[in-house]
Amino acid sequence: MSVGDKIYEGKAKILRETEDPLVVIQDFKDDATAFNALKKGTIRGKGKINCTLSTYFFSYLSRHGIPTHFLSQESEHVMKIKRLQMIPLEVVMRNIVAGSLAKRTGLPEGQPLPKPVLEWYYKRDDLGDPIVNRDHIRMMGLASDNVLRSVESLARRINDLLAAHLLEKGILLVDMKLEFGTDSKGVVLLGDEISGDTCRFWDSTTKEKMDKDRFRQDLGQVEEFYQEVFRRVTGHD
Amino acid sequence: MSVGDKIYEGKAKILRETEDPLVVIQDFKDDATAFNALKKGTIRGKGKINCTLSTYFFSYLSRHGIPTHFLSQESEHVMKIKRLQMIPLEVVMRNIVAGSLAKRTGLPEGQPLPKPVLEWYYKRDDLGDPIVNRDHIRMMGLASDNVLRSVESLARRINDLLAAHLLEKGILLVDMKLEFGTDSKGVVLLGDEISGDTCRFWDSTTKEKMDKDRFRQDLGQVEEFYQEVFRRVTGHD
Ligand SMILES: Nc1ncnc2c1ncn2[C@@H]1O[C@H](COP(=O)(O)OP(=O)(O)O)[C@@H](O)[C@H]1O
Ligand SMILES: Nc1ncnc2c1ncn2[C@@H]1O[C@H](COP(=O)(O)OP(=O)(O)O)[C@@H](O)[C@H]1O
Ligand SMILES: [Mg+2]
Ligand SMILES: [Mg+2]
Repeated sequence: MSVGDKIYEGKAKILRETEDPLVVIQDFKDDATAFNALKKGTIRGKGKINCTLSTYFFSYLSRHGIPTHFLSQESEHVMKIKRLQMIPLEVVMRNIVAGSLAKRTGLPEGQPLPKPVLEWYYKRDDLGDPIVNRDHIRMMGLASDNVLRSVESLARRINDLLAAHLLEKGILLVDMKLEFGTDSKGVVLLGDEISGDTCRFWDSTTKEKMDKDRFRQDLGQVEEFYQEVFRRVTGHD
Repeated sequence: MSVGDKIYEGKAKILRETEDPLVVIQDFKDDATAFNALKKGTIRGKGKINCTLSTYFFSYLSRHGIPTHFLSQESEHVMKIKRLQMIPLEVVMRNIVAGSLAKRTGLPEGQPLPKPVLEWYYKRDDLGDPIVNRDHIRMMGLASDNVLRSVESLARRINDLLAAHLLEKGILLVDMKLEFGTDSKGVVLLGDEISGDTCRFWDSTTKEKMDKDRFRQDLGQVEEFYQEVFRRVTGHD
């Protein structure tokens, strides 16, 4: 492989080689998918917004002691990151009932949770990313108990930090999906992205949805709300 | 309410009052349902078989230190049990991949698990009995952490005891669904039933299915296989 070669093209990002084998490029696309890619579309400007917002959040978390894969933002939609061995789990942290949690529990969307709820999903598109528990994770050997403990503790800290920070900007962090991996030394780091594609953001006053649910549910003004979250969080246009 | 009054009619059993408010009658029906009651039918002789088989298993477990709701078998299809405050959870213990575990993990049906896998399901017909984790259970207040710990430890012991015992009779205990409740003193007891409706039983040599999957999957000879498990386990016809 040589510099710039595509390592992987996912639904929202392309990973590319750099001159350093331990470093890769994460190139954010405007493409949007939902319902396990059954619904496809484009959100204009999303690549730039998600890359810059992720840069902002990774930097914020880093300053607060969370190890992340982030190295530098190279251009509007391109980020340099540490190459990780990804753990094939999506970690969902929830603060307010929404989406599948409402379906699973029968509780009304919008109900605040007394404590943040953690869910594990097996990252397997062909199986529809099913929810799993620790016994499933152990049985499939997806992560050691030690790694799992680190991931859980990081996920809870990340959620607490971001929920508090976002609230000051008038945004409720309803829930978020995180992905983790291990670096060449076996250290667990936060990977992937943190954006309106991977979080539910609600206006803290009006409770208006400001994230990918606008695309999923055809609520309109998708670009406008991605832009508004960006503005509120980063202070830039 | 007076003696004999119906307290609850479920899919497979009827619960009735007795003269003692702490004691109820569990009357086993021949009715069979599958896929959250989308499929309905009758398995001739099932009421008798499940009642007598459950009596056998409850007695066996009792002798091995497991507290159960079982009091006595009153007739072929009628059992006296302690009235419990049921915990609205189904506890599934698995020893071999089958059913939803194959779908969830992509692993082939029939693969033995290195360690038994435990799953919690929220017993809510209207939601389709969704799988849940400890955070969900806590969040909904379905059971205290203490009760959950007792349930988990009992479920694992029950599974180990029954799997070993059944193997001696030429039957693999692939997986089983258990329900627990608390008595008037708050003690956790095993409730409900243990039968071909709630367990996957496979012939240990031929791997033939000997349980409700014959009904679910229209494999034929449903009655015959219920009868055969009964014969092998109890030694009676
Ligand atoms: N630091 C990293 N090193 C290697 N792979 C990563 C890193 N961070 C994220 N990834 C992976 O890169 C891919 C990002 O592209 P994305 O479009 O989100 O893919 P997907 O459609 O699989 O979610 C994901 O598979 C993600 O797990
Ligand atoms: N000891 C007990 N005391 C009270 N309820 C019980 C006891 N054991 C089982 N039950 C409940 O009785 C019902 C048994 O009937 P069943 O036909 O299996 O119902 P369902 O269709 O709800 O599963 C279940 O709801 C079960 O939880
Ligand atoms: Mg992704
Ligand atoms: Mg039942």
